[in-house]
Amino acid sequence: MARIVMKFGGTSMAGIERIRNVANRVKHEVELGNEVAVVVSAMSGETDRLVNFCREASPLYDPREYDVVVSSGEQVTSGLLAIVLQSMGVKARSWLGWQLPITTSDAHASARIEEINSDAIGKAMSSGEVAVIPGFQGLTEDQRITTLGRGGSDTSAVAVAAAMKADRCDIYTDVDGVYTTDPRIVPKARKLAKVTYEEMLELASVGAKVLQTRSVGLAMKEKVRVQVLSSFDEPTDNPTPGTMIVSEEELEGSAMERQLITGIAYDKNETKITLTQVPDRPGAVASIFAPLAEANINVDMIVQNVAHDTGSTDVTFTVPSAELARSLDVLERERGKIGYEKLVHDTNVAKISVVGVGMRSHAGVASKMFDALAQRGINVLAITTSEIKVSVLIHEDYTELAVRVLHTAYGLDAEDAA
Amino acid sequence: MARIVMKFGGTSMAGIERIRNVANRVKHEVELGNEVAVVVSAMSGETDRLVNFCREASPLYDPREYDVVVSSGEQVTSGLLAIVLQSMGVKARSWLGWQLPITTSDAHASARIEEINSDAIGKAMSSGEVAVIPGFQGLTEDQRITTLGRGGSDTSAVAVAAAMKADRCDIYTDVDGVYTTDPRIVPKARKLAKVTYEEMLELASVGAKVLQTRSVGLAMKEKVRVQVLSSFDEPTDNPTPGTMIVSEEELEGSAMERQLITGIAYDKNETKITLTQVPDRPGAVASIFAPLAEANINVDMIVQNVAHDTGSTDVTFTVPSAELARSLDVLERERGKIGYEKLVHDTNVAKISVVGVGMRSHAGVASKMFDALAQRGINVLAITTSEIKVSVLIHEDYTELAVRVLHTAYGLDAEDAA
Repeated sequence: MARIVMKFGGTSMAGIERIRNVANRVKHEVELGNEVAVVVSAMSGETDRLVNFCREASPLYDPREYDVVVSSGEQVTSGLLAIVLQSMGVKARSWLGWQLPITTSDAHASARIEEINSDAIGKAMSSGEVAVIPGFQGLTEDQRITTLGRGGSDTSAVAVAAAMKADRCDIYTDVDGVYTTDPRIVPKARKLAKVTYEEMLELASVGAKVLQTRSVGLAMKEKVRVQVLSSFDEPTDNPTPGTMIVSEEELEGSAMERQLITGIAYDKNETKITLTQVPDRPGAVASIFAPLAEANINVDMIVQNVAHDTGSTDVTFTVPSAELARSLDVLERERGKIGYEKLVHDTNVAKISVVGVGMRSHAGVASKMFDALAQRGINVLAITTSEIKVSVLIHEDYTELAVRVLHTAYGLDAEDAA
Repeated sequence: MARIVMKFGGTSMAGIERIRNVANRVKHEVELGNEVAVVVSAMSGETDRLVNFCREASPLYDPREYDVVVSSGEQVTSGLLAIVLQSMGVKARSWLGWQLPITTSDAHASARIEEINSDAIGKAMSSGEVAVIPGFQGLTEDQRITTLGRGGSDTSAVAVAAAMKADRCDIYTDVDGVYTTDPRIVPKARKLAKVTYEEMLELASVGAKVLQTRSVGLAMKEKVRVQVLSSFDEPTDNPTPGTMIVSEEELEGSAMERQLITGIAYDKNETKITLTQVPDRPGAVASIFAPLAEANINVDMIVQNVAHDTGSTDVTFTVPSAELARSLDVLERERGKIGYEKLVHDTNVAKISVVGVGMRSHAGVASKMFDALAQRGINVLAITTSEIKVSVLIHEDYTELAVRVLHTAYGLDAEDAA
């Protein structure tokens, strides 16, 4: 017998027929003798509908009231899943965020989970009752509803798994696991049996949209074993394995099979901003990035060109495209302090990343990347590296070509697999 | 300065533009210096959508989970109205049923309000903040969400008004008040300035669908002054008066203007059931109505014909048409005990009622009714009377004619008014 948390996204919860499929899958786990908690999203499209109501009500909506409105989507699916489970003879009840409670910070619309009281559901689950928990929602200390920000249901699921010391947290998604890269671009992409938390963080944040980044970070911190599975397979005793997200230590056991590189990710949602002729003096760079940080804008790749003869330099960096307007606002307001000549931006860029814990012990990963891209005439506009990742910025038109070239160069194509 | 509760139904809350109209009306009351609580329904159509989800999930849904699902509609409109009010510069916040709390019985899907803790909203309102409260919902002692049954938002509004000792409870509806009868049938129908709780109960329960019956009963018990108003008028300093629902004592002041009869109501949702040749012995009638009462079926008009020579009698009564199938079930199951010959029913009937506290002190109201109907050749199938009401059952085809004839006979037509 194991304690497991199952999480289903909006596509799986869109309408009663799909909720019945979810319930069948839950029932199957119960019949295997497991204690089960289920974390659910709102029906797909519902959160958008509710968010749009709030925006229409006022572009400057009170986030506390926004949370009251948008949290209702998961409330509905929780109740409905409990009803369907009962109709199949499975004991079940819904537990809303305020009922457990799931205590969060008071950063409404993007709250952080602080504590989950699992006493009540622990007792219920021990008695064989499935606990159905709406994702995405929580409660502040002063008893107001919060939401965790878009995609927060993954985080809810991992947090519930941590609180109840679950043996496993199964995240059912539209895909059947984590691949070496996007299979729509590279048909030879392979599904990974295991991936480390760190790799998953890099893959998720650069575009492999399988799991919300925050949920992976939380899983890593709380050592929750997360499995990504397809919600479309029929539940069977021998399910198609998904991808397990595990610690580096657990991965060691299967080290023989490891490649140098685990996967190739890409992200077309970055915009390149360049400030020309910034005075080349101490503090100049800080005067650019401090106000952006204050405005909560996440700057990613930064390149400072060699100083011109004039004693000035060009500074290039990327921001999420969604933050472009706000970034330009901030930079224009700070123009006097920074002292740049021109402010230019380019949305037609893409970030390509090779990710793998294997590169910790191997040199030459980056140079192999530059070689492979250069051979195809792909120009690198910027570079960043971390311990387990090398990212380059290229023109957006070359995205698919770059991903394919690198997938082959690092020996990730399916026919190369053992 | 007064403390008022304003209640808006689903039509008024259907979409942000309409919610903005509601907010304007609330703002107007705040600017007059009033302390305001607003009770809101879900957007029109939303509760039906949610109820249908539950039915689709399982016809035998758990009412506790049903309440989790359907209460979300009012949660959404509460948050949205608070946002819109804030955007107009009016301080406001939503208070969900579990946040106040509004404590109810645990009869899920048709719970009764037991207590409303108005400490928090009282404080908030004193500081000039509008309290936005979702109607229809409450909380059991063991912290589960309840709903009050369809139309329960009127009851919520009256209960909130009672709890905070409000000076007035304004119910905004599709109509601009209570009329002497349905103006679609009698264009000369007049709007009543005042009507007593008792009259309103009779008018509501026989078809004047302005206010939920339960809310009127509660208003009477708690002595809440209820005003029915049109939600379509523009808010002004001299609003078109609606209809005040008041105690009989308060009405006395305006007794001069009182008519003998206050209004004429009709109800086409009754079905006539006849059991033929029931043995004419003690206990025979009880054997019919006891099992119907046990099945919670509300029997209304009862007529027992003169006994046949055979020592048997025909018993005729009405039930709500929605309960017909269940009624026939019960009666067929009990056939052996009751011992009737035939069970026949007729859905083509209508109940016409004349209502008025004035008839307490006047004889001849009923005979005037029978005369007026007889002159037009309308056959009376059954009769019931109460202290302030006389009702007759007629063939449904004569409904409109009967209402018009009686409206004129009792001097209610507009041109007859002083």
